[in-house]
Amino acid sequence: MAEAIRDDEGDKNQNMAAWLLGIKTLKIQPYHLPTLGPQDVKVRIKALGICGSDVHHFKVKKLSTMRCANFIVKKPMVIGHECAGIIEEVGSEVKSLEVGDRVALEPGISCGHCSLCKAGSYNLCPEMRFFGSPPTNGSLAHKVVHPAKLCYKLPDNVSLEEGAMCEPLSVGVHACRRANVGPETNVMIMGSGPIGLVTLLAARAFGAPRIIITDVDVQRLSIARNLGADETAKVSTDIEDVDTDVGKIQNAMGSGIDVSFDCVGFDKTMSTALNATRPGGKVCLIGLAKTEMTVALTPAAAREVDVIGIFRYRSTWPLCIEFLRSGKIDVKPLITHRFGFTQKEIEDAFEISAQGGNAIKVMFNL
Amino acid sequence: MAEAIRDDEGDKNQNMAAWLLGIKTLKIQPYHLPTLGPQDVKVRIKALGICGSDVHHFKVKKLSTMRCANFIVKKPMVIGHECAGIIEEVGSEVKSLEVGDRVALEPGISCGHCSLCKAGSYNLCPEMRFFGSPPTNGSLAHKVVHPAKLCYKLPDNVSLEEGAMCEPLSVGVHACRRANVGPETNVMIMGSGPIGLVTLLAARAFGAPRIIITDVDVQRLSIARNLGADETAKVSTDIEDVDTDVGKIQNAMGSGIDVSFDCVGFDKTMSTALNATRPGGKVCLIGLAKTEMTVALTPAAAREVDVIGIFRYRSTWPLCIEFLRSGKIDVKPLITHRFGFTQKEIEDAFEISAQGGNAIKVMFNL
Amino acid sequence: MAEAIRDDEGDKNQNMAAWLLGIKTLKIQPYHLPTLGPQDVKVRIKALGICGSDVHHFKVKKLSTMRCANFIVKKPMVIGHECAGIIEEVGSEVKSLEVGDRVALEPGISCGHCSLCKAGSYNLCPEMRFFGSPPTNGSLAHKVVHPAKLCYKLPDNVSLEEGAMCEPLSVGVHACRRANVGPETNVMIMGSGPIGLVTLLAARAFGAPRIIITDVDVQRLSIARNLGADETAKVSTDIEDVDTDVGKIQNAMGSGIDVSFDCVGFDKTMSTALNATRPGGKVCLIGLAKTEMTVALTPAAAREVDVIGIFRYRSTWPLCIEFLRSGKIDVKPLITHRFGFTQKEIEDAFEISAQGGNAIKVMFNL
Amino acid sequence: MAEAIRDDEGDKNQNMAAWLLGIKTLKIQPYHLPTLGPQDVKVRIKALGICGSDVHHFKVKKLSTMRCANFIVKKPMVIGHECAGIIEEVGSEVKSLEVGDRVALEPGISCGHCSLCKAGSYNLCPEMRFFGSPPTNGSLAHKVVHPAKLCYKLPDNVSLEEGAMCEPLSVGVHACRRANVGPETNVMIMGSGPIGLVTLLAARAFGAPRIIITDVDVQRLSIARNLGADETAKVSTDIEDVDTDVGKIQNAMGSGIDVSFDCVGFDKTMSTALNATRPGGKVCLIGLAKTEMTVALTPAAAREVDVIGIFRYRSTWPLCIEFLRSGKIDVKPLITHRFGFTQKEIEDAFEISAQGGNAIKVMFNL
Repeated sequence: MAEAIRDDEGDKNQNMAAWLLGIKTLKIQPYHLPTLGPQDVKVRIKALGICGSDVHHFKVKKLSTMRCANFIVKKPMVIGHECAGIIEEVGSEVKSLEVGDRVALEPGISCGHCSLCKAGSYNLCPEMRFFGSPPTNGSLAHKVVHPAKLCYKLPDNVSLEEGAMCEPLSVGVHACRRANVGPETNVMIMGSGPIGLVTLLAARAFGAPRIIITDVDVQRLSIARNLGADETAKVSTDIEDVDTDVGKIQNAMGSGIDVSFDCVGFDKTMSTALNATRPGGKVCLIGLAKTEMTVALTPAAAREVDVIGIFRYRSTWPLCIEFLRSGKIDVKPLITHRFGFTQKEIEDAFEISAQGGNAIKVMFNL
Repeated sequence: MAEAIRDDEGDKNQNMAAWLLGIKTLKIQPYHLPTLGPQDVKVRIKALGICGSDVHHFKVKKLSTMRCANFIVKKPMVIGHECAGIIEEVGSEVKSLEVGDRVALEPGISCGHCSLCKAGSYNLCPEMRFFGSPPTNGSLAHKVVHPAKLCYKLPDNVSLEEGAMCEPLSVGVHACRRANVGPETNVMIMGSGPIGLVTLLAARAFGAPRIIITDVDVQRLSIARNLGADETAKVSTDIEDVDTDVGKIQNAMGSGIDVSFDCVGFDKTMSTALNATRPGGKVCLIGLAKTEMTVALTPAAAREVDVIGIFRYRSTWPLCIEFLRSGKIDVKPLITHRFGFTQKEIEDAFEISAQGGNAIKVMFNL
Repeated sequence: MAEAIRDDEGDKNQNMAAWLLGIKTLKIQPYHLPTLGPQDVKVRIKALGICGSDVHHFKVKKLSTMRCANFIVKKPMVIGHECAGIIEEVGSEVKSLEVGDRVALEPGISCGHCSLCKAGSYNLCPEMRFFGSPPTNGSLAHKVVHPAKLCYKLPDNVSLEEGAMCEPLSVGVHACRRANVGPETNVMIMGSGPIGLVTLLAARAFGAPRIIITDVDVQRLSIARNLGADETAKVSTDIEDVDTDVGKIQNAMGSGIDVSFDCVGFDKTMSTALNATRPGGKVCLIGLAKTEMTVALTPAAAREVDVIGIFRYRSTWPLCIEFLRSGKIDVKPLITHRFGFTQKEIEDAFEISAQGGNAIKVMFNL
Repeated sequence: MAEAIRDDEGDKNQNMAAWLLGIKTLKIQPYHLPTLGPQDVKVRIKALGICGSDVHHFKVKKLSTMRCANFIVKKPMVIGHECAGIIEEVGSEVKSLEVGDRVALEPGISCGHCSLCKAGSYNLCPEMRFFGSPPTNGSLAHKVVHPAKLCYKLPDNVSLEEGAMCEPLSVGVHACRRANVGPETNVMIMGSGPIGLVTLLAARAFGAPRIIITDVDVQRLSIARNLGADETAKVSTDIEDVDTDVGKIQNAMGSGIDVSFDCVGFDKTMSTALNATRPGGKVCLIGLAKTEMTVALTPAAAREVDVIGIFRYRSTWPLCIEFLRSGKIDVKPLITHRFGFTQKEIEDAFEISAQGGNAIKVMFNL
């Protein structure tokens, strides 16, 4: 089980250092770790990145609605799910890991019994328990108990921070897999935020020969270019500009766009993606900015431009780690801010993450 | 080339009997058949069905806008594209067909050179010339000249009318192929019009174990049940009823819906399809009622419900003919009205087809 | 765990009635059932079919080598794995099943942790424990304890005997899935034994339009034709006859063979399959008669005829049950002999099964 | 048509410079170019590489059997098919190319009508006419007439010699595509000859994270390592060493091999490939050394190790050119020898190519 509650056998100070999202206040407080099962490990968390959904919890808290997508936060719980750490204890049946191993943690525990799990699509398991998705506690804590099979050993040349980055990177990797990106796939990415950037890195690693990335912010475009985008296009937020933006994008690419990733999720970005993609291509919708969308879906369908969705990821950790090990992907430039694990620093970290600005990934070193 | 113009060598009466869509009036008038190329055949058309898009030309004519999707009709041309006939003459290099052969005609001629043609996705060829798609003449004429490779010989037990039905049936077959329907795919079909019904027949032939079909009209639902639907659901046109309709559908099916076909294309039908389909399933958008759609695309994407588009069909005739030959599909119940090829009957036929009502497929016997 | 040992709480006579394969003798003797885990069920076995591999254990016993493929039988153990029964007890966490439910049992327990399990290819799991595969006990016993997730509830119109047939049928279903059989796949099946026949039934249910089946025995061909084969071909066992047999097969079919299933596994059958299959087609090797094969692999490769292997099956039970429920597949004609569960009848049953002859499936009613 | 015969309008010296394979002698002699069709171009060949099959023609000539696979050479004809050149004339309907364009030529002309062509598998077209495959003349000539759609414009940074290398590279690219090589595919390549090396380059470009290559010759292994192989293994030709070699290979890789390419085609190489590949993996058979093979096919099938064949390639030129343009693949180190187009140099070139030794690719500059 992913719950992290008070560990009565461990060091008191460490046990205190769990992050709780309170209904009214945010504060560090102690809680109980669950019993270690025979196939579980206890992990000392060392690095944890803040995700947009964590910030979302934080923001909505202030608005006192406590709602993220369909999940409603009803009582104080631990947030956080992008993490890596060091094995402190292994369950009686665990053979693949030892105390002292450095591991990245895959945050979701699926049932293993349903038809989706059996078919390998375990990310869609209806009984998924996921770090920080209510009611399951997250991993912004000194220690967690987690199934050994979801803890992936890191090679020597991959740091714990990089290990924590496997989680956001997995989103890009899963998107590229579902959209079947390869050396013949010209790619467009809408949005140069953290998810747009990991999708850029993933698409490059999957062999995409040419990638264009868009944003409304030229500074973000400049970061994207430094991270390897072949082309960038500054776009507007005005729905009237779809045709202009499509023209700009197609001009810059000079060839058809096979796959577009909408990492934003507004009518404007999705319309641009649908129209800019070649007949028979795909648009992968990752961003969740808007629930209802008004887009020209029919003309896209009549060009056999398919709309592919993704939910998190499945079986991505080994590939992410291989990308990091081999140097095909370097996630270090994405980590723009680092904080320790004190009440003050936690508040600062979330504040910076929520502001956006030049922050890409804000990382805790616990 | 698909153009059908005056055939100076044939019977004068027959040559006169070509159907032209005039800018102001609809009338039969003679026109020239193109020269027979070495790989072409000349076909005496014997059966031709009226399609919604033909009716669309007819209707918009009255409204004097002459527009169908992006195609604008600028001058009188022949309409019609669902047809079968008898070979009257074969080009010098044609080996696969002989005079007297009964054939069904695939209406679109692709370039064969572009990357989409080379990859087998020739229906997306940007240089496609398609019967009755401006500026290419259609086949509602006594004779046409067409490439031999697009004329498929009919077995003895398949009639010319059934041969003409290969065209609408191909839409259902292509949709089932793209959505990967098979013996493990529970199917929902939104809309019991001609396209909904051919999709029903195709899904059954592809092995779908359970199929539910919906409509606003109980009489159409009753026809669908007679054609083999396991379940039917009367739905409303009110967007407020999406949740109710989804509940009704899921109740009737008692199991997850793997693939939904929206054969209508309104916000309501698409919303129902997106919400009713299981995580990891597919919605195939066939109907083109609306261009812009307002739908909850993001939640569907976050359940990995993909939206698959189709444009006509590719390489479907042999399979359609096999389905008809083997009796896996019986299209005869879909042919509800038959007309001869006179000015008066043509006008009646289009009138009946345009009214909808209990007409499914209106067929000309030429 | 699949082991079936003494059940001290049950009826003594029943507990005695477990089938053990002794090193020197075959006899029924009591043994211990394992403790019921929280996600297990205890099943009263009611129907069990004899498989070729069971007969193989029996035969090799006589030869005192006790070897089946790479598995060596070292001590007495229960054999049998094609079974169905009635739930007698459910573990504390089992929600999907109740006492009294009629279920078919999938015989293999995979680890759920390895990369193959995670990807859905759990049949290839290196830690698989499979009924009757040494050292795991089988299910030719009055009772077994088995994971609830591997016990599939039978609809009212599917008998327990039919439930037991899900196991051999699964081989055909998995083969058809791997070879991607559908309504456009003309199929050849080499061998009209039990596996050839279940493959025939499966290919038909997957929509194969035309199926030819071969054998050296005309009586078996006649059975195959009664079960739905469109064509049959009597072939020889002489490798010199490959070309003749290929000619005979292609003549009978009159069209290209898209997928061939070799349900025998001799040089002759495999050579015939490789040569008879069309360019770009597939040969699926199911039969295991020979380990080393001498075949013209290179010319097949140069026609892009792929050789597809299968190992048992994965995620097939729900589909098999649906095929039986809907009547798309009728396995009852395959059950040619029935026996009770006494020492004498057991010996007779294995004798008849080993002889082949007109026996297809020999079933125990326990 | 691919035939290259006398061009009466051109320069006499150039017209003489066609390479003919005589029944008894090899000599340059003039021949007629066919008429330029409306969709053809005339190309001045500038670079042409010698392929193993060309050498095969040359060798068998000496043995006076004139047979290559099933093709029998009956009369003098032009050989050669790995080529690039400059457009000299374009047919009346050609829009995509201009005089002076530098192009790489795809050598095979498919019918475009058969079911395989329509499905995009045009390499399997039964009516294929292919440069230098009897009775179709090849392109080791100063000029050829060829369909414009099979001539691919080279970017400025790709030389004509590199353009000619698109042909052998296409074999590796097609093999990687069929075997679905990507960033998660650990690869083994058996054989470090020209085809092994282009497969190495292609597998790398498709993202294979780790590649091991084998050979009997340490010098060739050293070349392979310089070209980017992660690991190399010296193997024997003795079938008794299969287990030892498999152990050596698996040791060197330290992880499962997902896809093996047998670029040789002996019992020994294929056995090694079948045994070394992980359950659920693929063996792609490219080499054609032996027709009949004696290999342990059944155990491989029972681990679901599929055997994938390839025949030449399809739709590979644009991707090869992109790989060369982007620098993902550098084929220049493969070109070890260069010759002019005189009788003496031609004989030397074939001699060196036939000897093997340190020659990888022997190139003519015409």
